[in-house]
Amino acid sequence: MNRRRRIYEGKAKVLYEGPEPGTLIQHFKDDATAFNAKKHAVIDGKGVLNNRISEFIFQALNEIGVPTHFIKRLNMREQLIRSVEIIPLEVVVRNVAAGSIATRLGLEEGTPLPRSIIEFYYKNDELNDPMVSEEHISAFGWASPQELDEMMMLAMRINDFLTGMFLAAGIKLVDFKIEMGRLWDNDMSRVILADEISPDSCRLWDAKSKDKLDKDRFRRDMGGLIEAYTEVARRLGIVTENEQSAGSGPRLVQ
Amino acid sequence: MNRRRRIYEGKAKVLYEGPEPGTLIQHFKDDATAFNAKKHAVIDGKGVLNNRISEFIFQALNEIGVPTHFIKRLNMREQLIRSVEIIPLEVVVRNVAAGSIATRLGLEEGTPLPRSIIEFYYKNDELNDPMVSEEHISAFGWASPQELDEMMMLAMRINDFLTGMFLAAGIKLVDFKIEMGRLWDNDMSRVILADEISPDSCRLWDAKSKDKLDKDRFRRDMGGLIEAYTEVARRLGIVTENEQSAGSGPRLVQ
Repeated sequence: MNRRRRIYEGKAKVLYEGPEPGTLIQHFKDDATAFNAKKHAVIDGKGVLNNRISEFIFQALNEIGVPTHFIKRLNMREQLIRSVEIIPLEVVVRNVAAGSIATRLGLEEGTPLPRSIIEFYYKNDELNDPMVSEEHISAFGWASPQELDEMMMLAMRINDFLTGMFLAAGIKLVDFKIEMGRLWDNDMSRVILADEISPDSCRLWDAKSKDKLDKDRFRRDMGGLIEAYTEVARRLGIVTENEQSAGSGPRLVQ
Repeated sequence: MNRRRRIYEGKAKVLYEGPEPGTLIQHFKDDATAFNAKKHAVIDGKGVLNNRISEFIFQALNEIGVPTHFIKRLNMREQLIRSVEIIPLEVVVRNVAAGSIATRLGLEEGTPLPRSIIEFYYKNDELNDPMVSEEHISAFGWASPQELDEMMMLAMRINDFLTGMFLAAGIKLVDFKIEMGRLWDNDMSRVILADEISPDSCRLWDAKSKDKLDKDRFRRDMGGLIEAYTEVARRLGIVTENEQSAGSGPRLVQ
């Protein structure tokens, strides 16, 4: 493991060289960060849970024809993925007002939006990932108009799928953040889903109690993060009832 | 004058009831504000200059078929305009990086943009006029997709016209802000240009010296605002050479 070439280390994940050209290994760390890494903690077991939840979702998306970088899970913390050229945009899909849109537009948190809204943020830590519009994206060439269309179509399909999936698990999908990349095939490229989808990148509220089952527990110092992520995994059928009751962090179905 | 019904008082202008239904009188004050009115001053003669500069521009736009609310100038500080339903968006067109886009995207002020960029800001003082994208605008119904198309087309035409006009006056049009409104005709409405176009709402740099000839002189405490606005009016042929040299504020060609 130590001899593998590290390609990139992010806040919550590391990318290593993969076994074949065009592949990478995506390793999920236990690090939790918020507010552009101004806040940081290590939360034992988070990486294991996110690896499994993200595997579950990406596999299902591949099956419904939403192209993703996911190939297969390798072990508790790692997945084999396709290497893509990351598009420098965070794509946020919102169904209910929460977080920055509530502040920016003066909406009470929890207000259903008139319709789902897609937002783009320019991935740049120094600039605090500023929100940008299609005008900025095409003017600066971060994505072509055609890629933007593809991205928005994928984002809406993913929103439909996730909304249904979480609904069935008694969870309201408030919003989520995704990243996409270009997969090159000779001189042609297409846009595929990259990165991860997990309670780190979604806002998930219990449908009845409105309890937060996502990273807002960390952002807002609410505690109980691992319990919440485990609950999400349990409701999706990834963790069994027995395992959920384990004392020292989650144990997962292999 | 005092008996007219005041319809609306803004930071730099007042709207009074007009002489006929569907008309208003737009009065230009000498007030200068910046940073959402946190900074305020009264600058003797500014309203007179902006009334004339805006008249000059709106009249020319009407003539090239860009529909505006401008009917005619009434006196030193007032214009007769059509009453429209203001669309709650500030439309900003940028040709060169300056102001908020330079900060947000980490661009050096003065960097030419790869192409002209249109931005939208939601007009709401309490929220500090947040930047919004087409997604927000259509989701919240601030403008319909068709209106947005009309707005962007008008904004680009106005940019083309102003760029040429100022070029001929030895001035670089860095960016400008406009507002638009709906003009109703029975059940149909169309989008027309409203508000004003003046050195209050544009960034104008002397083509050679790069001297600022706009409201940034006030925002940045540079002084010489009236001299700069007068210079713009002079170069556009609105103020004559003689009048410019007057000591106590600008005198204008009637």
